[in-house]
Amino acid sequence: MTKRIKIIGIGAGDPNHLTVQAIDALNEVDVFFLMDKGPSKDKLIAIRREICRRFIRPDRAHRFVDAASPERERDAADYAASIDDLNARKQVVFERLIADELGDGECGGFLTWGDPALYDSTIRIVGEIADSGRHRIEWEVIPGVTSLQALAAKHRTTLNTVGRAVEITTGRRLKGFSEDADTIAVMLDAEHAYRRLEGDDVDIYWGAYVGTEDEILVSGRLSDVADEIERVRNEARARHGWIMDSYLLRKRSPET
Amino acid sequence: MTKRIKIIGIGAGDPNHLTVQAIDALNEVDVFFLMDKGPSKDKLIAIRREICRRFIRPDRAHRFVDAASPERERDAADYAASIDDLNARKQVVFERLIADELGDGECGGFLTWGDPALYDSTIRIVGEIADSGRHRIEWEVIPGVTSLQALAAKHRTTLNTVGRAVEITTGRRLKGFSEDADTIAVMLDAEHAYRRLEGDDVDIYWGAYVGTEDEILVSGRLSDVADEIERVRNEARARHGWIMDSYLLRKRSPET
Ligand SMILES: C[S@@+](CC[C@H](N)C(=O)[O-])C[C@H]1O[C@@H](n2cnc3c(N)ncnc32)[C@H](O)[C@@H]1O
Ligand SMILES: C[S@@+](CC[C@H](N)C(=O)[O-])C[C@H]1O[C@@H](n2cnc3c(N)ncnc32)[C@H](O)[C@@H]1O
Repeated sequence: MTKRIKIIGIGAGDPNHLTVQAIDALNEVDVFFLMDKGPSKDKLIAIRREICRRFIRPDRAHRFVDAASPERERDAADYAASIDDLNARKQVVFERLIADELGDGECGGFLTWGDPALYDSTIRIVGEIADSGRHRIEWEVIPGVTSLQALAAKHRTTLNTVGRAVEITTGRRLKGFSEDADTIAVMLDAEHAYRRLEGDDVDIYWGAYVGTEDEILVSGRLSDVADEIERVRNEARARHGWIMDSYLLRKRSPET
Repeated sequence: MTKRIKIIGIGAGDPNHLTVQAIDALNEVDVFFLMDKGPSKDKLIAIRREICRRFIRPDRAHRFVDAASPERERDAADYAASIDDLNARKQVVFERLIADELGDGECGGFLTWGDPALYDSTIRIVGEIADSGRHRIEWEVIPGVTSLQALAAKHRTTLNTVGRAVEITTGRRLKGFSEDADTIAVMLDAEHAYRRLEGDDVDIYWGAYVGTEDEILVSGRLSDVADEIERVRNEARARHGWIMDSYLLRKRSPET
């Protein structure tokens, strides 16, 4: 018999961002694999449990399995290699979970933050396990609202300007505007990368813990608000012990 | 008294992509402004009405107002200017609707396709009207699942590869891969723009009418499937009288 796996996008903090499709999927899952780790683990697991409590019918039995795998070496010299290594180790963990914790005919669920397609390894790893042919797996991906969309909505701004391109990138890679994209959306920034563009004439729309009760939003001309963002960000990270934040950078048009 | 406006992302075709937040918002709207036009108008309005029928409580009174504004001149020489002109005319229509069709204290709703932040002018136009100070308006944006996320989920692939950037652009602008982004997501392509990259070693994940009962998906190495996509696309457009399709282009990594 086949095992089923659902990779379910749950939005980036606000349980009300769950879609009808995601809620239907939650109600088919027998085993939820919780993979959070690090300092944000408690909070992120609490949000997932709250989602299950709110949206799973009371008569629907399900269990949770802790699937946390080792963390990436923070100071590895080769970033891509350290990620590959991490994913290889994750795959071993996932495969063991699927073999040992998921019965034949059962449905396993991964509740992925935001949308599963954006800076998340679950699709890649489950895909490789399914392709390996070592297990009979049927799997499905359920899209979710990403943190970038939640951020844009809270700032009541768009991702793109009229007819122009948008780049989505990481703090690590952020350098500047390409010819086509006059908006850059930045995720996974551990190092105040926006400061690199401070000399440009740019607006920033920044948000931390967007959609949660700890949400913080700051926007304005980058040269005016960069100090404030750095201060607020350091302060929030110190207070919570971790931070999740992202931002849009947009070239000001010549007229404004 | 203040008028309220909600810009509600409804996903890109599948009513099950509505979020809990969007459903709550639907149930506060007194007047829905329907802005569809062109050959896809009937279908897109039918999906919006189906969403309202399914998700609005039966006791909740609401009305629909046709807000279709003139279309952009298809063969205008200056694309940006023709869009600016279109948006100016749209703003006049929107402002008249807000003045005449929305009572004080009432809530107006725009049901925007996918996510309101991506290639959609509603946020910009409502924002300008609100900023003008000519009306007392409170407005809010509710994010939705974009067609790109629905597309990626159906293909069970990611938007980004590990640690790399993604570019979101239009068919009109598509030229090639920038240094950072090894994935390009293309929307609004009226001209088979993917053919421009056929010489590169690229995979394509293409989809039309994603999330609807007419969904078509094709994926593979671009040089293998470009002809098939062009054929399927032309055929579908002829059959329906219109098409909505988008795709991801991804550089193959040297190893594969
Ligand atoms: C590993 S990525 C996962 C992104 C997720 N799949 C999505 O669609 O949003 C984590 C990054 O997403 C961003 N992020 C996630 N949740 C966020 C939130 N609630 N507020 C602001 N940024 C958030 C941060 O940039 C964080 O470093
Ligand atoms: C004006 S843009 C609006 C995009 C929308 N705001 C979103 O978030 O998906 C319209 C373009 O979105 C894409 N699109 C919208 N719905 C789609 C669907 N169901 N399947 C494939 N592409 C779609 C097509 O590229 C189309 O030309």
